[in-house]
Amino acid sequence: MSRKTVNIAEKYKLFSEQWSPKIIAQMNDYHFKIAKIQGEFVWHSHPETDEVFMIMKGELNLEFRDGTLKMKEGDLYVVPKGVEHRPVAEEECYILLVEPAGTVNTGDVDSSERTVEEVPWI
Amino acid sequence: MSRKTVNIAEKYKLFSEQWSPKIIAQMNDYHFKIAKIQGEFVWHSHPETDEVFMIMKGELNLEFRDGTLKMKEGDLYVVPKGVEHRPVAEEECYILLVEPAGTVNTGDVDSSERTVEEVPWI
Repeated sequence: MSRKTVNIAEKYKLFSEQWSPKIIAQMNDYHFKIAKIQGEFVWHSHPETDEVFMIMKGELNLEFRDGTLKMKEGDLYVVPKGVEHRPVAEEECYILLVEPAGTVNTGDVDSSERTVEEVPWI
Repeated sequence: MSRKTVNIAEKYKLFSEQWSPKIIAQMNDYHFKIAKIQGEFVWHSHPETDEVFMIMKGELNLEFRDGTLKMKEGDLYVVPKGVEHRPVAEEECYILLVEPAGTVNTGDVDSSERTVEEVPWI
């Protein structure tokens, strides 16, 4: 057999660029993606899907229009579809995202400097 | 706002029974479930869906008919739909599963002592 586990911590060692998600696994038509982020993202929503955030290292302020959710390592949160949000990390934060394959990171925002059209596997 | 993160480690502290999965989050029509397992599960497959295993604590031998995948903390693996597998843990192991809501833990095995028909939220 040629089965291999994905060790998430090892995958983070393979890249250093921030705001550049990488796919580490696919389950049915969903992707598991990892990213290193620091600073402010853009306000956006995903009109068609919920989006899971898991914090693998560091802390994340997940801003909503009506308040901020403070997340730390080991936390999981599901952003409901259609809800505007903006991830902000003061220090570098490692996140794991779960969402349908093809979901664009900036959602309903057509294009920003943060938009990544083609997310590579790692 | 009333948003709350799910801290996965805290959720494990809320129960001690083994082989008794609990739902901690829902994303679209998928559930995130946690379980504490020790010993041997039953051979089964999920004919309709892939299934994600993440190891949150301990070690898991994920047996397949053609070999065993050894998983440790921080590892992720997607069992492809239709593929027979059997989780076996020598010591207690904490797992996180991601699969469609309603997926029965014993899959195509109609009923075993391990079958959990109704998975509660925690």
